[in-house]
Amino acid sequence: MDQDQLAPDLVDTGFVLPGSTQHQDIYAVIDLGSNSFHMLMVKVVGGSVQVIGRVKRKVRLASGLNDNLVLSKKAMTRGWECLALFAERLQDIPSNNIRIVGTATLRLAHNVKVFLTEAEKILGHRIEVISGEEEARLIYLGVAHTSSSDSNRLVIDIGGASTEMVIGHGFSPLHLASLHMGCVTYLDRYFSDGLLSEDNFNAAIAAAEAETIGVAALFLGTGWQLSVGASGTVQAMQEILVGQGMDEVITLTRLETIMQQSIACGQIDKLDIVGLAQERKQVFASGLSILIGLFRQLHIPGMTLSGGALREGILYGMLPQLQHTDVRNRTIASLMVRYYIDQQHANRVAEMALQLAHQLQDQWNLAKFEGLSMLRAGALLHELGLLIEYKNHHHHGAYIISHTELPGFTRAQQQLLMALVFNHRADIQRDIIAKQTMTSVLLAVRLTRLLRLAVILSMRRKHEALPEVQISAQAEVLLVALPKGWLEQHPLMRAELEQEVAYQQAAGWQLQVR
Amino acid sequence: MDQDQLAPDLVDTGFVLPGSTQHQDIYAVIDLGSNSFHMLMVKVVGGSVQVIGRVKRKVRLASGLNDNLVLSKKAMTRGWECLALFAERLQDIPSNNIRIVGTATLRLAHNVKVFLTEAEKILGHRIEVISGEEEARLIYLGVAHTSSSDSNRLVIDIGGASTEMVIGHGFSPLHLASLHMGCVTYLDRYFSDGLLSEDNFNAAIAAAEAETIGVAALFLGTGWQLSVGASGTVQAMQEILVGQGMDEVITLTRLETIMQQSIACGQIDKLDIVGLAQERKQVFASGLSILIGLFRQLHIPGMTLSGGALREGILYGMLPQLQHTDVRNRTIASLMVRYYIDQQHANRVAEMALQLAHQLQDQWNLAKFEGLSMLRAGALLHELGLLIEYKNHHHHGAYIISHTELPGFTRAQQQLLMALVFNHRADIQRDIIAKQTMTSVLLAVRLTRLLRLAVILSMRRKHEALPEVQISAQAEVLLVALPKGWLEQHPLMRAELEQEVAYQQAAGWQLQVR
Repeated sequence: MDQDQLAPDLVDTGFVLPGSTQHQDIYAVIDLGSNSFHMLMVKVVGGSVQVIGRVKRKVRLASGLNDNLVLSKKAMTRGWECLALFAERLQDIPSNNIRIVGTATLRLAHNVKVFLTEAEKILGHRIEVISGEEEARLIYLGVAHTSSSDSNRLVIDIGGASTEMVIGHGFSPLHLASLHMGCVTYLDRYFSDGLLSEDNFNAAIAAAEAETIGVAALFLGTGWQLSVGASGTVQAMQEILVGQGMDEVITLTRLETIMQQSIACGQIDKLDIVGLAQERKQVFASGLSILIGLFRQLHIPGMTLSGGALREGILYGMLPQLQHTDVRNRTIASLMVRYYIDQQHANRVAEMALQLAHQLQDQWNLAKFEGLSMLRAGALLHELGLLIEYKNHHHHGAYIISHTELPGFTRAQQQLLMALVFNHRADIQRDIIAKQTMTSVLLAVRLTRLLRLAVILSMRRKHEALPEVQISAQAEVLLVALPKGWLEQHPLMRAELEQEVAYQQAAGWQLQVR
Repeated sequence: MDQDQLAPDLVDTGFVLPGSTQHQDIYAVIDLGSNSFHMLMVKVVGGSVQVIGRVKRKVRLASGLNDNLVLSKKAMTRGWECLALFAERLQDIPSNNIRIVGTATLRLAHNVKVFLTEAEKILGHRIEVISGEEEARLIYLGVAHTSSSDSNRLVIDIGGASTEMVIGHGFSPLHLASLHMGCVTYLDRYFSDGLLSEDNFNAAIAAAEAETIGVAALFLGTGWQLSVGASGTVQAMQEILVGQGMDEVITLTRLETIMQQSIACGQIDKLDIVGLAQERKQVFASGLSILIGLFRQLHIPGMTLSGGALREGILYGMLPQLQHTDVRNRTIASLMVRYYIDQQHANRVAEMALQLAHQLQDQWNLAKFEGLSMLRAGALLHELGLLIEYKNHHHHGAYIISHTELPGFTRAQQQLLMALVFNHRADIQRDIIAKQTMTSVLLAVRLTRLLRLAVILSMRRKHEALPEVQISAQAEVLLVALPKGWLEQHPLMRAELEQEVAYQQAAGWQLQVR
């Protein structure tokens, strides 16, 4: 009776084992930053990167650098202690799969050799101290691999002791710059008294503007259509905006408001702003000042947060099989593989959805805000949740989308995708459509309605069984026309379409089928 | 700029495509029951069944059967209309992958030929009207494939016009019986006035007892250790218990209380009991009466709901690759494959967890309530959520477990598993442990603590790197001892263990490591 008396045995599946990881499949990247040290461990699953471990320590190396650019023994020791932790896991990963990179503080320190000798002994691995330009290039690659754009893009990464700026197109950086300003060094330089005074902010911002002015002309001359920021400073700003009920776009006006909120707190250890994480407080004002300086000099209208930066750039450099494909398609394709999506069917639904959309494209303005792209992505991913369970698979799919990192999609696009998948069948929850900020509610509703129809019309999971459908709209009233006699010959689909008329009716949308 | 202007193209992944389904991989089972007709469509993914479609219609065929056992034209027409819906999807599935089965009403109807001739024409497929014993055998198989037991088990399935009873062991039925009572026929016979009177209930229960008495002696003589119920009646009872805040075990006392609640409602169309679904109301009182009759005659102390029954039995009969393995192991193994779990690592953590558990087994009473089995399952599945995202993968794993059908695990075991996976790392949420009803909170806490330690001790994902651990307990104070000097040589694990002491402290549990 009691199976627990039996000796524990391995689960012998008898199946192919895609999940068994050999240590040669694990990759590690370590980034010895001026503010913190990070170790990232990943493996490749279904054509994309899966994080399996992360260790991070706030070493704050830059604050150990004195005016003569000598790194203190105390700061070095903090660094070595952290590396001893990393070393423990690093020893199990093959040398070729490891890259360890040091940035601004190690670039600057005259006595860097002392640090490196001991550090390499601890790690059992070589450390590369990279130039500011190489850092900028890698940051750009990390951004290019995790977000999508087909126009020129400005990338900014505010580190502890340097700030990298890049303009690039696709996977190619066009201009690279590394500036001598960072949130740790500016903390020591302009906020050493711990006061969040207008004077301190003004001094820090002025210094940042002065630092930027030299490259601003070149960058402005080339121009860009999209600005993204990497690093903790930009992330903290975005968290504050969202925490205060705004959308995710960082603007100069919003930054200046946040600065006023900071000044009202008086001093760094009393800093208390809705949405600001505890661990970010120390270097918040200095990072904010640098960001304001950059916004002013570069006339940036709005900036969003990038998914990746330096570590991702290094990582993708080690994984040649993941390079130079369309990032968004790679994300979709990988999700389809990971969740065992029936790819033929997903493509069939996408085709049907786009076929419906093309009939309404002008009238319903569907190409706006990448509407058709999002509809296609929603169709390709609509069965994501089926792996968990059938009955509520639309909810499970939405759960997966909302918790997965989706390189190539912004957070707002991710929300829209989530809303589409959530509402692709059964009861419609309008509040989820209303909550997404990617596009107007009207457009999101239109996309949802088309996706639902495409799913029903493809229900036989067979290309030859797709009906010829005419669709038209009078304002928001949708008219679906099937060939004469077709509905009579297909009672199940007729029943499903009748049910759909009722679902859309309940959501306040008129649909007619004949 | 606008990618939406491009023609839609297929996502060409360049990867192996485990998710592309050919139609020959789809299986369909249709069950022409006396109460409702069901069609279930599945495919096999990662060694287990994935439902991809389900159609159900309340045809209530049995109510068209008159006292002379002639099936009315009206009832037949309802059936044919439903089959026309099914036929539409059936045509795309190869004949060999389809099985269509008729049960009690079709067994009984003298004019069954009339129904079948037209029905087979509509479906384009042969219908098997199976005997009561064959139905009972298939139900038993369906239960054996979806729940776990290594003792004799009683299975009861109350249909629309018949009730099947089986005692079996493992995958083998020992006694099979099919009784002439069902929730539709008893509705017509004992509740035709629509009244929920004590008299109606008593008459129905007495009839059910009389029907059961003949086989009760044989069944009681063989005996069983576990009772499970299939079918809507048992499901409705369980939903009521859970809806009213009780655990999931159905007992005679609870059934009699529910009967009193029903009587208080007066009549069927005013039936309103907390937890009872609208669609179940019509045949609720008749099903309840049959269940009470069975409980009384068979002296059943407690019954839980089975995951599968007739349709699953038919299905597993068509899928030889899934037959006759341990159901619980099959479920775990399949989840490991579906979610790309690192199987070597999962087995390593399970081994470590059981090694710790064996040291405390007697003192902590861990073998109770299958504690060790559950600990092993929790360890094997703890990285389930990693496919979604790293940071909160313990939460994602718990989400997956709580929404997935887990053949071989009861609902209570599923809750415990969910609590273990949720709490396997980072902050501990005690309320989730307290909510599971599988075992005492004390035992669940003990299992959680051991799993957490096993995960940390295996963190290097390497067999050779596992430390020799001595573990002991003084009441609930846990003492973990590592070899002399080991912690000094492993600063990362030491840091993790120190963090773990703090996590357990915060949950009110004392842990000492040296």
